[in-house]
Amino acid sequence: MQVAVYPGSFDPITKGHLEIIRRTSKICGRLIVAVVDNPNKEALFTLEERLEMIKHSVEDLDNVEIDIFKGLLINYVKEKQVRIIVKGLRAVSDFEYEFQMALMNKSICGEIETLFMMTSPEYSFLSSSMVKEVVLLGGRVDDFVTPFVHRKIIEKIGNGG
Amino acid sequence: MQVAVYPGSFDPITKGHLEIIRRTSKICGRLIVAVVDNPNKEALFTLEERLEMIKHSVEDLDNVEIDIFKGLLINYVKEKQVRIIVKGLRAVSDFEYEFQMALMNKSICGEIETLFMMTSPEYSFLSSSMVKEVVLLGGRVDDFVTPFVHRKIIEKIGNGG
Amino acid sequence: MQVAVYPGSFDPITKGHLEIIRRTSKICGRLIVAVVDNPNKEALFTLEERLEMIKHSVEDLDNVEIDIFKGLLINYVKEKQVRIIVKGLRAVSDFEYEFQMALMNKSICGEIETLFMMTSPEYSFLSSSMVKEVVLLGGRVDDFVTPFVHRKIIEKIGNGG
Amino acid sequence: MQVAVYPGSFDPITKGHLEIIRRTSKICGRLIVAVVDNPNKEALFTLEERLEMIKHSVEDLDNVEIDIFKGLLINYVKEKQVRIIVKGLRAVSDFEYEFQMALMNKSICGEIETLFMMTSPEYSFLSSSMVKEVVLLGGRVDDFVTPFVHRKIIEKIGNGG
Amino acid sequence: MQVAVYPGSFDPITKGHLEIIRRTSKICGRLIVAVVDNPNKEALFTLEERLEMIKHSVEDLDNVEIDIFKGLLINYVKEKQVRIIVKGLRAVSDFEYEFQMALMNKSICGEIETLFMMTSPEYSFLSSSMVKEVVLLGGRVDDFVTPFVHRKIIEKIGNGG
Amino acid sequence: MQVAVYPGSFDPITKGHLEIIRRTSKICGRLIVAVVDNPNKEALFTLEERLEMIKHSVEDLDNVEIDIFKGLLINYVKEKQVRIIVKGLRAVSDFEYEFQMALMNKSICGEIETLFMMTSPEYSFLSSSMVKEVVLLGGRVDDFVTPFVHRKIIEKIGNGG
Repeated sequence: MQVAVYPGSFDPITKGHLEIIRRTSKICGRLIVAVVDNPNKEALFTLEERLEMIKHSVEDLDNVEIDIFKGLLINYVKEKQVRIIVKGLRAVSDFEYEFQMALMNKSICGEIETLFMMTSPEYSFLSSSMVKEVVLLGGRVDDFVTPFVHRKIIEKIGNGG
Repeated sequence: MQVAVYPGSFDPITKGHLEIIRRTSKICGRLIVAVVDNPNKEALFTLEERLEMIKHSVEDLDNVEIDIFKGLLINYVKEKQVRIIVKGLRAVSDFEYEFQMALMNKSICGEIETLFMMTSPEYSFLSSSMVKEVVLLGGRVDDFVTPFVHRKIIEKIGNGG
Repeated sequence: MQVAVYPGSFDPITKGHLEIIRRTSKICGRLIVAVVDNPNKEALFTLEERLEMIKHSVEDLDNVEIDIFKGLLINYVKEKQVRIIVKGLRAVSDFEYEFQMALMNKSICGEIETLFMMTSPEYSFLSSSMVKEVVLLGGRVDDFVTPFVHRKIIEKIGNGG
Repeated sequence: MQVAVYPGSFDPITKGHLEIIRRTSKICGRLIVAVVDNPNKEALFTLEERLEMIKHSVEDLDNVEIDIFKGLLINYVKEKQVRIIVKGLRAVSDFEYEFQMALMNKSICGEIETLFMMTSPEYSFLSSSMVKEVVLLGGRVDDFVTPFVHRKIIEKIGNGG
Repeated sequence: MQVAVYPGSFDPITKGHLEIIRRTSKICGRLIVAVVDNPNKEALFTLEERLEMIKHSVEDLDNVEIDIFKGLLINYVKEKQVRIIVKGLRAVSDFEYEFQMALMNKSICGEIETLFMMTSPEYSFLSSSMVKEVVLLGGRVDDFVTPFVHRKIIEKIGNGG
Repeated sequence: MQVAVYPGSFDPITKGHLEIIRRTSKICGRLIVAVVDNPNKEALFTLEERLEMIKHSVEDLDNVEIDIFKGLLINYVKEKQVRIIVKGLRAVSDFEYEFQMALMNKSICGEIETLFMMTSPEYSFLSSSMVKEVVLLGGRVDDFVTPFVHRKIIEKIGNGG
């Protein structure tokens, strides 16, 4: 596994994402965290803010780089001449969706493999949308994101508690 | 289980909700049916109408009271100094979502437990949104809600059939 | 199984739908492909376009006819005096939703049965919404739909590749 | 659906089996309840006893007949020149196993279709093995089987309560 | 929830069981850990050894007592005049099995409720049989059981590492 | 991914196993197919026969080697100083079991990662035990295994059909 792509919206990056990035970076030569730029999908943070938060979170990892992609993930991966997509699985519902995506991607480009890693149990409930929902309802999320991301969330929405 | 909270939107209350309320009220000292007041989430019935329908449905249950909460459920439960949240489970998809919510709540406040009860099989397909969908498409729902709620639905949308 | 109804949005019809139609048409006397006309649900293709694509895809099947329904499927099926609804199952998530729909339909009209068929594994990831998503993101979908439907998609959105 | 096969061990036949048989018999011309004769699989009741209990349970259904098969179900169905296998689905675990069996059967003989029917919710927990387990542990099962089958179970193991 | 029963084989008791016992003991008046005495089911530890390990693990919990039951759980709970059974849920497969058991129990005795609690994520993979499998294959299990239970396992099978 | 281990019983190796081996061998430096030697688990083929069938199936793959392990997989992988275990996922039931195994392995040795690959849909129903069951019931399995393995099965049990 020389090069792998870890794609996502990262709106914002959570400790669950970070755990997958750290574990993957140890078993591959180079890991590209690929942030989707989808103007049709509403996001809490701008693309720049999301990139900044990821950069801050992975700056100690030498073989991790950050990139942006538009359009179909499989096309981006093909252009990059990468062979491996890495995804985290938390639960059965993830599994089904990712199963279908992996099969469709395999059917579009048979050369590219999607490899799945089980999220650590302590992050099995964690997602960017849960973090945002909790914040918007007035809850604290400092256990679920890094202090830097936490500050950015407070700047954005409030709820420093 | 002295006091328990049964939270929901109840838009409107169905026989499935009522079954969980009745069964829970028999094994706890006091049960608070907690209706979420979320102005961002579109509802068919106003908060007042939802409260009225619940009140009418549980008036024979002495130890059941009705309340309203805003924001994060776990914060509301903590303020009320209640230790137990009760939820009904109908199917695997419920299970996964509720599992994640229970873990997140546990992570936010370790003192509060979520207890799950299996919905009776005859209501395993029933949800407020299914009731609304069926009514809007011209179907009858008198088997799924109480006669009082049924009248309220007809007043609201029609379809008395 | 003299007459059966295969309902759906078919926006657009995929090879997965076609496989269910072909297999079902071999074991029943007459199969009605029933396209839902739901003005509240946004569709990529107009009702007429969807009908045209289905008609083109099944024209070699003598015992398959195409119809339109409004409102609740179960009411349409009852009016048609048909006893059987046919649905394809791809995955556990389908199963749960369809289970609930079948139980609700059974509870509304006990005379009508829903029969399920497993989608062929090579189409287990395929859905109209996946096709549309791939096209909108710049991917090719010629393996997932017939050439006629592919042309219609290109006329509509582009991406002839 | 002129002829269909409903296969199983029926050790013993439960009200869940009977419900599928009754519902299927109404939508097909002829239904063959096919009891597997597998000397390698331990059963509580002999093949003759199982046949007797089924016969007694379906004697009012004119288009239902009972048969025995050995070996692979798909071979039996092919020899009988039947095109349809009917199975009941109770839960996700059934779904996965039956999905795999249906795909394997389809791969062995593409002409034969397996159609699935959702078990009524009140029997969604019911299986022959649960019935036997409950009886062996001293519980009552008269709600889960017909009175005739109940008597046979008592003759066999006891527990008339 | 004045009195609740937490049933199981506890062969041996794991940290996953203990977590459910501790959490439940905090929200109920009295908790009975009920160990099944099933001579037909092969166990690694004798009933006495299993009781000893539980006793040692819960001795600091004043409102937890230990009992033995034979036959059907629901009959035992009824005789004890308890209304609540508590079970831990780890995963979807647990959910389905426990769902069916809860429905069957409800159908046998409508007065008794089964309440489910989600196992902490760090024990979501843990079961007595996994512990035994790991030990028999030469692995260490000191993270999964208490030191006392660990010693008992080593006395029984070896593998002190 | 320099070196990876693909563990299993391979009793016998199926086309589903082979597909995972081929796909994995293309994205890693070296792949070790590790056959478990478990005298307590009954197998149709001896260890030597299983090794021979694997060897014959992968002889064109330069970077694939075959090995035997006893005891706990995680211990074997650690001794080999490998960091990656590869597993195929076919369905939700696989997912749950493998999820629990991966978490337990991670808990025993945090350095070793399990990566999952989705089995191709056309093999999603295939397992060694299904192959054996079909053969024993008199069915043909030449589509599910290589011709060489097929001959070995016929030599062992018969059913050349």
